[in-house]
Amino acid sequence: MFRSLLTAAAVSALLVGSAHAQDVKTAEALRDKALRDYTAWDITEDLTTSIGPRLVGSPAMARAKDWSAAKFKALGFTNVKVEAFAKPSWTRGEESAELVAPYPMKLNIVGLGRTLPTPADGIEADVALFKTYADLIAAPESAVKGKIVVITQPMVRTQEGTGYGVAGISRRSGPVEAAKRGAVAVLIRSISTSDSTVPHTGVTAFGDGVATIPSAAMGVPEAEQLERLAAKGPLRIKLKLASTVDPKNVAWNISGDIKGSEKPDEVIVIGGHLDSWDVGTGALDDATGVAITTAAAKLIGDLPKHPKRTLRVVMFGSEESGGSSEAYVEAHKAEIPKIVMTGESDSGADRIYALRLPAGAGAHPLIATAAAVLAPLKIYVDRAPNTHGGSDIEGLEEAGVPSIGLSQDASRYFDYHHTMDDTLNKVRPDELAQNVAAWASFLYLVADSDIDFRALKAAAPAAPSH
Amino acid sequence: MFRSLLTAAAVSALLVGSAHAQDVKTAEALRDKALRDYTAWDITEDLTTSIGPRLVGSPAMARAKDWSAAKFKALGFTNVKVEAFAKPSWTRGEESAELVAPYPMKLNIVGLGRTLPTPADGIEADVALFKTYADLIAAPESAVKGKIVVITQPMVRTQEGTGYGVAGISRRSGPVEAAKRGAVAVLIRSISTSDSTVPHTGVTAFGDGVATIPSAAMGVPEAEQLERLAAKGPLRIKLKLASTVDPKNVAWNISGDIKGSEKPDEVIVIGGHLDSWDVGTGALDDATGVAITTAAAKLIGDLPKHPKRTLRVVMFGSEESGGSSEAYVEAHKAEIPKIVMTGESDSGADRIYALRLPAGAGAHPLIATAAAVLAPLKIYVDRAPNTHGGSDIEGLEEAGVPSIGLSQDASRYFDYHHTMDDTLNKVRPDELAQNVAAWASFLYLVADSDIDFRALKAAAPAAPSH
Repeated sequence: MFRSLLTAAAVSALLVGSAHAQDVKTAEALRDKALRDYTAWDITEDLTTSIGPRLVGSPAMARAKDWSAAKFKALGFTNVKVEAFAKPSWTRGEESAELVAPYPMKLNIVGLGRTLPTPADGIEADVALFKTYADLIAAPESAVKGKIVVITQPMVRTQEGTGYGVAGISRRSGPVEAAKRGAVAVLIRSISTSDSTVPHTGVTAFGDGVATIPSAAMGVPEAEQLERLAAKGPLRIKLKLASTVDPKNVAWNISGDIKGSEKPDEVIVIGGHLDSWDVGTGALDDATGVAITTAAAKLIGDLPKHPKRTLRVVMFGSEESGGSSEAYVEAHKAEIPKIVMTGESDSGADRIYALRLPAGAGAHPLIATAAAVLAPLKIYVDRAPNTHGGSDIEGLEEAGVPSIGLSQDASRYFDYHHTMDDTLNKVRPDELAQNVAAWASFLYLVADSDIDFRALKAAAPAAPSH
Repeated sequence: MFRSLLTAAAVSALLVGSAHAQDVKTAEALRDKALRDYTAWDITEDLTTSIGPRLVGSPAMARAKDWSAAKFKALGFTNVKVEAFAKPSWTRGEESAELVAPYPMKLNIVGLGRTLPTPADGIEADVALFKTYADLIAAPESAVKGKIVVITQPMVRTQEGTGYGVAGISRRSGPVEAAKRGAVAVLIRSISTSDSTVPHTGVTAFGDGVATIPSAAMGVPEAEQLERLAAKGPLRIKLKLASTVDPKNVAWNISGDIKGSEKPDEVIVIGGHLDSWDVGTGALDDATGVAITTAAAKLIGDLPKHPKRTLRVVMFGSEESGGSSEAYVEAHKAEIPKIVMTGESDSGADRIYALRLPAGAGAHPLIATAAAVLAPLKIYVDRAPNTHGGSDIEGLEEAGVPSIGLSQDASRYFDYHHTMDDTLNKVRPDELAQNVAAWASFLYLVADSDIDFRALKAAAPAAPSH
């Protein structure tokens, strides 16, 4: 086993020639150490257990901020920063829904993130049920006015998670579109790939100037039951949603550095988001993303010599509640030309299967080295350029920072995310470790190199060559 | 395909010689027809959709009773009977629980069936956490007095469902034992094989002379979170449970017959239970048991000539809330010597894998025929005698009626049973059909035979010969 690893390292180095042989050996050693390292597990367990759910504006989020700074320091990070920014808070109250006709039955629901509340005694109305969002858009106002709109469009399970964006329009735009047509409330089938009654929250359109109505998501069996009942006769539902908003609240982006040994002003910014929804404990979304990137950088920080460039891990403070990205860009404007690469882990903790790169980077010799180091983890280098690395780094992307993606298998992620079932027992330690192995080895290679993704992109042909 | 089935039938008949060749052909034809028949699916869908949850004493249960009688008649059953018996009702009200310390977090809970309520403003107390029921029993009163007892013993997943009885003691006896030691309430880890937050209800010890306390079950992730938090420091929980009891209420056993063509007074009594818990729609527990046995008998009833003996399907009316078995025996005392066999389907709708028989029956030639007919369904005949056919027929068993079991794979059953997730989308149509195929073909062989299980049992050696 030990001999074969050495041989693989030697072969990789000979084949590539770009990275020093020592770099390849170090990257491979990091990879293999990470596969047996429990740092990411311990971070995930500690965050989900000691802090629990972490909604922006909650006392738990304030505790999480302190936890984050302390964690960075304890793991040997330097230049630890806690950067505050304004973010209105939204606090969920009591919620319930009941089928009133044809017979009484409790429905398992959760208010959509930042929904308006109903009046204190709820809203009871007849139901206008649509099997797709498109059916709602096509419906005449007379079919909707005064009704509770129910949308039962299901989400398709895919490895890339691409079903989320398609089905998610019910959640993002359903309430606003139903409001335009005179509906009094909206109840959607959870944006979920599971067959569970546990409902999924997630943000809906909100804020000044958005004309919307109270809206919630129900469990999958409930949505299917309502479809069957609607085929037999009229439905009536009672919905109660309570919540409060504090416009003055605060959020934080917290970061720590592994300082570069030769070019410390060149920075790689990676991370996940510290905040979570208030249901569950935000294990897959996104304690594991925080844990994976922190553990990967920590393993690199433990090396006898740091790589040339600085690694910075950011625990972003408001992914779920309206974005931490703009605040990060605003606070780091001057530094942006020196941020050489960015990336985010925010699709759970199942296996990484692909590395996605900025346009033009695929042909660089360092990437052949990376491909060889990642291959034993069953990760390939995608030929198409990376288009979006994560919502906390999209501000950096828009400001021209090259972004990479280490794509996680999202087949199972949308069974749990944004629910009370996003908990530690859904994390598989071996798959979590595979993530850390991929991040640590790839980050090390880039951090100890001179690769210039911006220049490669500028020189790339307009369309990818496949 | 058709030719090979004929060949198999001919071979079975030649090998066995006991059942007429025509019986074997009929049993095999029933089996193969059942595999493509949707009667059981339609019954399951109709009961779970048109009626929904069916708790004893609820208006839904009264509707279910009417549904049941109408369904028997529509499917061609005769001698349809609705037999009322007294059964106190219990109606769940609002329920909630919250971790108060070390930090506030909502816990997903459900009151145990027939639990006492808490005072209207709930019970808040420090927690005494026990990782097993045995730990509670061994604890000194000083560790429990005035506390909310939390028991986090997990349930083991097995094909036979044998983990249920072992872990279930927390639910059945935990509240009484905690009350003896001065606890103020009990919160158990759900008796569940899943990793879900959806909590499992189920009956706990109740009634006159039982000294007990308010008790509920929580989701699996919550139980694991409390275990981890308890290792760090003290816990405090607030629990609210509301419920009402009506001692005057009524339940019903409903039955329909497929009348025997030659010996109609010899009766085979099979069935499932019509009642369910108030969470979910009682799909696996036990709409499918009702559907499987009804569909199997209906297929036999559709034959040009009924078998010799009468088949009776009973939809039992109070399995979850204290038993329908005694009432059935009481109402049918005079008939018991003529009930030649009984059996129940009440472990969901996954594949049947074993036929279990009364002691002494295994060597009868009819059983060799049955084994040959069931083999293509991947069902074997167990060599050990059947010990318990189901809780609705245990009164018949105690009165000496021979019982059989068609054992379902229960690996997945305890992920869902007694929860809001016991819904139609957990039923797999192909596995449901396999159940009907097994029941229909086996029932036909016994009903058209003279096999006397009582006499075989009387002649059997004291211990099984394996």
